[in-house]
Amino acid sequence: MPASPHPFDPLVPKEIEKAAQVVRSKFAGQDINFRVITLKEPPKEEMIKFLDLEHAKQPFHNIPARIARVEIVTKTTSGASALFELHIDLGHGSISKQQLLEGKHSYIDSSYMNDVEKACMANQEIQDEIKKLDLPAGASVIVEPWAYATDGMNDMSKRITMCWFYLRLVEHQDANYYAYPIEICAEVSEELQVTRVYKLPCSPDERIHTESRPFDRRKIHSTTSSEYHPDLRPSPRTTTKPYRVIQPDGPSFKTRGNLVEWEKWSFRVGFNYREGLTLHDIRYDDRSLFYRLSLAEMFVPYGDPRVPYPRKAAFDLGNDGAGLNANNLKLGCDCLGTIKYFDGWHNTKSGEPLKLPNVICCHEQDDGILWKHTNFRTGNAVVTRSRILVLQTIITVSNYEYIFAFHFGQDASISYEVRATGILSTVPMDFDEKATIPYGTRVAPGVLAPYHQHIFCLRIDPSIDGQKNSVVIEESEPMPFGDPNVHNPFGVGYQTKSKYVAHEGGFDLDFTKNRTFKFVNEDKINPITNTPVGFKLMPFYSQMLLANKDSFHAKRSEYGQHAVWVTKYREDEFFPSGKYTMQSMGGEGIASAIKHRAASGKAPSVRNEDVVIWHSFGSTHNPRIEDWPVMPSEKMMVALKPVNFFLGNPGLDIAASTQEDNKSVLYTEGSEVPKCAASRL
Amino acid sequence: MPASPHPFDPLVPKEIEKAAQVVRSKFAGQDINFRVITLKEPPKEEMIKFLDLEHAKQPFHNIPARIARVEIVTKTTSGASALFELHIDLGHGSISKQQLLEGKHSYIDSSYMNDVEKACMANQEIQDEIKKLDLPAGASVIVEPWAYATDGMNDMSKRITMCWFYLRLVEHQDANYYAYPIEICAEVSEELQVTRVYKLPCSPDERIHTESRPFDRRKIHSTTSSEYHPDLRPSPRTTTKPYRVIQPDGPSFKTRGNLVEWEKWSFRVGFNYREGLTLHDIRYDDRSLFYRLSLAEMFVPYGDPRVPYPRKAAFDLGNDGAGLNANNLKLGCDCLGTIKYFDGWHNTKSGEPLKLPNVICCHEQDDGILWKHTNFRTGNAVVTRSRILVLQTIITVSNYEYIFAFHFGQDASISYEVRATGILSTVPMDFDEKATIPYGTRVAPGVLAPYHQHIFCLRIDPSIDGQKNSVVIEESEPMPFGDPNVHNPFGVGYQTKSKYVAHEGGFDLDFTKNRTFKFVNEDKINPITNTPVGFKLMPFYSQMLLANKDSFHAKRSEYGQHAVWVTKYREDEFFPSGKYTMQSMGGEGIASAIKHRAASGKAPSVRNEDVVIWHSFGSTHNPRIEDWPVMPSEKMMVALKPVNFFLGNPGLDIAASTQEDNKSVLYTEGSEVPKCAASRL
Repeated sequence: MPASPHPFDPLVPKEIEKAAQVVRSKFAGQDINFRVITLKEPPKEEMIKFLDLEHAKQPFHNIPARIARVEIVTKTTSGASALFELHIDLGHGSISKQQLLEGKHSYIDSSYMNDVEKACMANQEIQDEIKKLDLPAGASVIVEPWAYATDGMNDMSKRITMCWFYLRLVEHQDANYYAYPIEICAEVSEELQVTRVYKLPCSPDERIHTESRPFDRRKIHSTTSSEYHPDLRPSPRTTTKPYRVIQPDGPSFKTRGNLVEWEKWSFRVGFNYREGLTLHDIRYDDRSLFYRLSLAEMFVPYGDPRVPYPRKAAFDLGNDGAGLNANNLKLGCDCLGTIKYFDGWHNTKSGEPLKLPNVICCHEQDDGILWKHTNFRTGNAVVTRSRILVLQTIITVSNYEYIFAFHFGQDASISYEVRATGILSTVPMDFDEKATIPYGTRVAPGVLAPYHQHIFCLRIDPSIDGQKNSVVIEESEPMPFGDPNVHNPFGVGYQTKSKYVAHEGGFDLDFTKNRTFKFVNEDKINPITNTPVGFKLMPFYSQMLLANKDSFHAKRSEYGQHAVWVTKYREDEFFPSGKYTMQSMGGEGIASAIKHRAASGKAPSVRNEDVVIWHSFGSTHNPRIEDWPVMPSEKMMVALKPVNFFLGNPGLDIAASTQEDNKSVLYTEGSEVPKCAASRL
Repeated sequence: MPASPHPFDPLVPKEIEKAAQVVRSKFAGQDINFRVITLKEPPKEEMIKFLDLEHAKQPFHNIPARIARVEIVTKTTSGASALFELHIDLGHGSISKQQLLEGKHSYIDSSYMNDVEKACMANQEIQDEIKKLDLPAGASVIVEPWAYATDGMNDMSKRITMCWFYLRLVEHQDANYYAYPIEICAEVSEELQVTRVYKLPCSPDERIHTESRPFDRRKIHSTTSSEYHPDLRPSPRTTTKPYRVIQPDGPSFKTRGNLVEWEKWSFRVGFNYREGLTLHDIRYDDRSLFYRLSLAEMFVPYGDPRVPYPRKAAFDLGNDGAGLNANNLKLGCDCLGTIKYFDGWHNTKSGEPLKLPNVICCHEQDDGILWKHTNFRTGNAVVTRSRILVLQTIITVSNYEYIFAFHFGQDASISYEVRATGILSTVPMDFDEKATIPYGTRVAPGVLAPYHQHIFCLRIDPSIDGQKNSVVIEESEPMPFGDPNVHNPFGVGYQTKSKYVAHEGGFDLDFTKNRTFKFVNEDKINPITNTPVGFKLMPFYSQMLLANKDSFHAKRSEYGQHAVWVTKYREDEFFPSGKYTMQSMGGEGIASAIKHRAASGKAPSVRNEDVVIWHSFGSTHNPRIEDWPVMPSEKMMVALKPVNFFLGNPGLDIAASTQEDNKSVLYTEGSEVPKCAASRL
């Protein structure tokens, strides 16, 4: 009898209701803003015992307790607000933890942001500035509020919001207002007061200023080239013919609740407001591989040094939430073939369950050839096609979208693909036709797309045949040539050198040495290769954070300093820039955590221990005009591959590819609709 | 009236016949072995004039002459052989060039290799050695002849072949004999004499030796785990359900002869025995992008220092030929959807045309999401799917296969994907169960899969809005923090620094600086970004050649020293390890060519000139047991992307993705064959 809900399952609506009810009775009479009601995952130690029994199909008596982690903001009668974290034991209806989080901010509150927009538009100074701009008729002003990226210029104990201004030039709700940034900028206080109005710099050397320059209507570019919405565009091309994926016998996967089974893989799908899609208890042929995989953080700092642009630096998970901003995926639009959708649950301000429909999709894709060999002596070929299972979620964070997908392979690999698309966050620049600004790309008259970085962090919690794993760094290096003690007579020899990671730390990539990070189980030796069973990281090579190490950007993000971090597993250590990133002051990330543990003399060993690997990667995005007005997907790919884990190719038993199954069609030159060829093998 | 054949078209059968006929009459009475009869592409200068007129739809009077490049090996009456290169003017039926290539060898001759195998098996010493091994009944010995990788131990003016020995353990023609390497090795002379028989080293410190050890039959592993052919395997898994690609209105591409047109792209498909698939005159929206794209070389050196393994180092293009070894692709096996196949033509020994059927396929693939944006204010999403056009060829080089594919994108990018699959080249090792050898991975009892590298070279001949292009190296670097002369008050600013490449040379990658190689046309300024129009290389980060720079491997390959080479275009400079790689002595590759030109005081400028970029990439392949007995595809990807070439996203006019076109199906939990959901958008 399976546990229902399973201990890894996100909270179900009834549990959200229950948690809210317990909190309400505790904070009776107070104004409560429920920010988070989410699953607090069970302690790993308990879960491992549970999973061992579950997979052994043995009865379990101690199902880990269902605990809700709740964040609320309360308002005292004086109007001051307080942020609390609470743990609610749902079985007992009791509060097992209550903590006032002084100096911390909860993530972005969209209803509050709406109020900020209104406050801006109601403000006389802003109205006066807008009037001075002498905007074209029919144009409307859009206020885009952003979380304030700490720069040391203001007291961060209270919330401050930065507001950027754009123009919706035509009367269409989906007009691309990022094409018309205007030079106003405002700071809004926690109490919804406009505390400062800036005029943005518009040339390379300019600073913020006070005088207004009228928005020169003669120089406004036409909308067509800056629009992406079909209503505002000429008719699309008709040359792309339909392409359908047909799975006549249905998909090869099966789901039962959040359990997914496919081609010897099994795992559980999780979801929360912050990380979005998470994966748990990932096994292949019932051998344990990963306890948990998740996108842990994402940081988007802008590289324009001019004030106030250093305040543009978004923690898209910590500040915005990948789950909360997950798209409602649509059948036939976001994927092809046979698709399973998973809903997510969040909560309203008042603590009611809030359904987030279709936030995750699960489907198969053909991935070309898995393996092939032709015996050149007989001419006989055997070819198998690669099928992958895709678990995908897409998020919208203001202007940008990110498409996150785990790909499971029949070769027992897992890939993690990120696609960046959406619209560039723009700023105004001079209308001079020949203008350039060294911190960005001119994408339209008066429009600068500033340089910025996207730095992701994938958290990998391995359980390679068990929880006790080690990380080993392997390099391929030439053997000495000419050394009489080394047998390398022709100078062609090379070997691998391996070094186990002893202590927590950050590490860099080096493709010039074929540096490879492996996660191995030293207690399990592959009986054929005589080496520990393991998986390896196939990283995405990318530039790390460009901001100076003494900048707030660097101090607040931390994980962007190195591509690979290794830590010992700790309960509740999920976020490499700290748990509370909104207006954070820095020093709460993974580097600090490692440093503090080492400084306290308790630097934990990570050899043959429960280890976690964090991979930082991303892109230095110096926009191309081809990214405008909407950006073609920029792909980034990370993979985890078995290395001497199995006894051979895990996809060896895939059936050969045949025309009988695939029913491909032969193209004949000159026929617009090709004739179907007779089936032949 | 289009030219037929088009000047870029490979030779047609009649032209091959004509060329052979001209050669035969010149060499009347001699024994001629026709190694090559292929197109000598017209001089670029002529071609550019022709293409300009062709694309302007103007009449052309001077169609470049059709020239065949022919290689023959003749035998004199004394039995000595001579290699000639000839150019045959097909229009005039005349020989325009005839050159005796002293000290050079033509590529591998498969009929000669068959003779080598037979010579081995007929040799008494080898038969005696085989007898001593006391092989199991039913087993047969397979001789695998390899080109001799120069090691300085023999006179290379005559051809020497290295023969490796394996066992076919069961009586099935497709049994995997690489699973049973045996310790014999032989050298065979040009005159088919076995000149030396070795016993291979079988332990880390062992050298070649003379005594034989019986092949211990008790220790031979069972075949099943080492076989890949379905006849020799248990029944395959049945869990992978059929997956079909349906294109109800046919494909979006159109071909006319070797001209392919698809989604604003046009290009011509070429093919020759050595490079295999080549692409010519690549345009987007009739703007010129690349004059020619081709895989130029591929080197596979093995890293085992023990004699005679340094002789294992294959130039898979120069020695074997990617065209000659291209697979006959099968409908429904190697691709899905609607497929156009191209045949290739080569020649027989006696100069007759030889058809190589279905060596290239052309088809479309869905590639996920091209771009998406959701307006968070309205909730309205616009999503487009990415369609790619794939031009694919697959080659088998003895044990390995390589899948080479150009992907054309609707975002005006071109990707080049390489997949390595097939079977590892193995060598024998001791049967001791606990044995390890530091130069390889034990994949079965007595079987070592040695470490090796695959180093590819993609030749990129850009014509970015014309032939005069420059290469610029851009890096993203932090602005100084704390320098009173630099406005970077918060330490977050960064800029790009660009440097034009002035002279020919080799360059390295550096992702830590986001180092980017762009090909630009300095005479064409993008009117919006105010920067030269260009494309950029998205490289594949990989370790370069590990062999010592003074080794023959390094001297013979040369291009594996750097990831990017820039040269000025020269007629006939197509091969970065030289034109004749068989038993080459080194010093004929790209590094030497650049050095010689510089040393002669004629170092050509590559700024605003006709430049060529060569990208070296690959993998240091330290085998995993998961690569055995047949290797799951290992992917490598390179891309060329527009950077400020267009006026915006080239895929902006792609129609939004709809369920009406895509007809996806909703999965319902618990239904083995899911119900079709009502269409909904």
